[in-house]
Amino acid sequence: MEKTPRSFIREILKVTEDPNIISFGGGLPNPALFPVEALVEAAREVLAGDGMSALQYSTTEGYLPLREFIAKRYRKRTGLTISAEHILITNGSQQCLDLVGKVLIDPNDPVAIERPGYLGAIQAFSLYEPQFQEVPLLEDGPDMEVLSQVLDTSSPKLFYGVPNFQNPTGISYSGKKRREVAGILMEHDTLFIEDDAYGELRFRGEDLPLVGSYLPEQGIITGSFSKIIAPGMRMGWIAAPPEVFTQLVTAKQASDLHSNYLTQRIIYKYLIDNDIDLHIRHIREVYHHQRDIMVKVIEETFPPGVSITRPDGGMFLWATLPPGFSTMDLFQIAIKENVAFVPGDPFYTDGTGSNTMRLNYSNSDEERIVEGITRLSKAIRRMINN
Amino acid sequence: MEKTPRSFIREILKVTEDPNIISFGGGLPNPALFPVEALVEAAREVLAGDGMSALQYSTTEGYLPLREFIAKRYRKRTGLTISAEHILITNGSQQCLDLVGKVLIDPNDPVAIERPGYLGAIQAFSLYEPQFQEVPLLEDGPDMEVLSQVLDTSSPKLFYGVPNFQNPTGISYSGKKRREVAGILMEHDTLFIEDDAYGELRFRGEDLPLVGSYLPEQGIITGSFSKIIAPGMRMGWIAAPPEVFTQLVTAKQASDLHSNYLTQRIIYKYLIDNDIDLHIRHIREVYHHQRDIMVKVIEETFPPGVSITRPDGGMFLWATLPPGFSTMDLFQIAIKENVAFVPGDPFYTDGTGSNTMRLNYSNSDEERIVEGITRLSKAIRRMINN
Repeated sequence: MEKTPRSFIREILKVTEDPNIISFGGGLPNPALFPVEALVEAAREVLAGDGMSALQYSTTEGYLPLREFIAKRYRKRTGLTISAEHILITNGSQQCLDLVGKVLIDPNDPVAIERPGYLGAIQAFSLYEPQFQEVPLLEDGPDMEVLSQVLDTSSPKLFYGVPNFQNPTGISYSGKKRREVAGILMEHDTLFIEDDAYGELRFRGEDLPLVGSYLPEQGIITGSFSKIIAPGMRMGWIAAPPEVFTQLVTAKQASDLHSNYLTQRIIYKYLIDNDIDLHIRHIREVYHHQRDIMVKVIEETFPPGVSITRPDGGMFLWATLPPGFSTMDLFQIAIKENVAFVPGDPFYTDGTGSNTMRLNYSNSDEERIVEGITRLSKAIRRMINN
Repeated sequence: MEKTPRSFIREILKVTEDPNIISFGGGLPNPALFPVEALVEAAREVLAGDGMSALQYSTTEGYLPLREFIAKRYRKRTGLTISAEHILITNGSQQCLDLVGKVLIDPNDPVAIERPGYLGAIQAFSLYEPQFQEVPLLEDGPDMEVLSQVLDTSSPKLFYGVPNFQNPTGISYSGKKRREVAGILMEHDTLFIEDDAYGELRFRGEDLPLVGSYLPEQGIITGSFSKIIAPGMRMGWIAAPPEVFTQLVTAKQASDLHSNYLTQRIIYKYLIDNDIDLHIRHIREVYHHQRDIMVKVIEETFPPGVSITRPDGGMFLWATLPPGFSTMDLFQIAIKENVAFVPGDPFYTDGTGSNTMRLNYSNSDEERIVEGITRLSKAIRRMINN
């Protein structure tokens, strides 16, 4: 347990409960986009129509029609063929990472992970005490030279990555990198854990195939309703090849028997009674606009020497200060200007990255983005000119 | 992973999906008692009234008003003083066992457990590879001589028990045994994990204090809404002393961030808008009646040499065949008579107990209990006279 890093994000969330502070710190979807009315109706129909069954214990794997919906959507959206039989419903996609750790990681196992990497994965895996092998993320995906070296020298059991609109950087793997990553993993015995929590949130360019579509026997894909319906319902899934799938189900059963069945039923009812594509298109438009505003105000106000990513989807962008400046120090200055963000430090397991930070644009409207980035710019200038 | 026993219960649940089979096998509450109408209303009010907040990410610890409700109820019902600050909301009480394993059990750690013991705990703990030390359950609680010996010789980090209406046996610790168990654990450095999933379901005699009330610094108590509201909502909690609590929260965050927040809000709304005492009294009356019928028909029809427990609450009773007979064999005969139960075998980690079985009375009405026990009696006679 001592090896698990404390979650800085949660700590930051607490600091930013002050309503005067504009926070780009959390990873929250925009709640104005939650389909509240439709969920009221779905909940009423499930409970009033079939409450006795929807409130009873259920199967560990999850509600079959929901798993079939997910499988069908993968086929339609990405061409990926996954059987509903090999999809397990989980408590958000965070639980997938815990189950993967439980099933696949023994103490001191080498585990390859992007640098910077998703904090929730670092936390979940850390409990199982792996040796993290970091693969730097370039602007089109993993540094293939390092990945190749890591695979050759330490044969990790798994490589964890977020090819679509990564948390924290907003970076996506290019089409070429996807094929290359799949190719090199196939030459080794390494599973790819493909966290696709943000895949539905593309607002620029064309959808690209999942890495898993090139890796039918080594690809494990996690997904979530948190970003396209609502995160408070804690509903995600993991798709895995048969042998791993069976172990995941056993681990899930020991962990909490099964996911909230009432919520599975409500989500399924919502999905079949509403136009989810229309809903997601709306989310994409709003996030696209918010992302554009944030990039524009950054370009107009940040001092030279600060670089940013320009994501094609998702909820985050990533800023890098000139070398030698610390975003932990910046955080203290920024708080006085009533603006917050997540320093990049915790997303690295090797202590580097101290001049980076994550900025969330999904949970602030235009006005707050303009005001907040202007404040942040002031804080950066104050620090740099000090 | 290989060390985790497959869940026989789940396998049996599958066999018993045949509607012709009367099953005493599952551990299901009676769904006719689910407060469906009140939950429809609670869900509507939470979603329509505060949907944007109820559907958003929330804190790992859980919804504070719900935790305060639980703390207040402990005080009122059992005199136990627990601070809401030290109650963590979980996905049913099964997740408590997983978190306890994560935080407290390292490979080969000795862990004391009742024999027979709750299968879900054996499964959850097994993932963390402890050495189980079994303490036989007598009709008034643990065998104190063996418990004392186990504590002296292997100093287990924890002792896991179900003092109220144990699963699988229906046995409860006497008042004297509760004090003795607390006393002897206090002399050692052993935590007591008190699984109180059934504590509210007493239908005979007076409520007894929780063992944890004598063990403020070594008592960890788990509870659940599964048996008093509905299990499909997967909502439980764990109360622990401050130091362990902090570790449990870290483990919970890494496992799935937080429990389903919408469901927490719905359950809280249900609790404050309805008379939960009245509701629980009704559940107790129904289960009392079903238990009485089952005991009566067993007394009238089972052959001599079969003994049973006579529980004062909960959902199960426990039957023991004469030595040398196997309930795994009986299961095959019983299925042909269209009746099912859970053989006792999996509740033992040492391979003994093969002549025992668990019978659930909560999920069958009077007619099915009479008919099912009559069939089971026939199967037993057939086996014994063979």
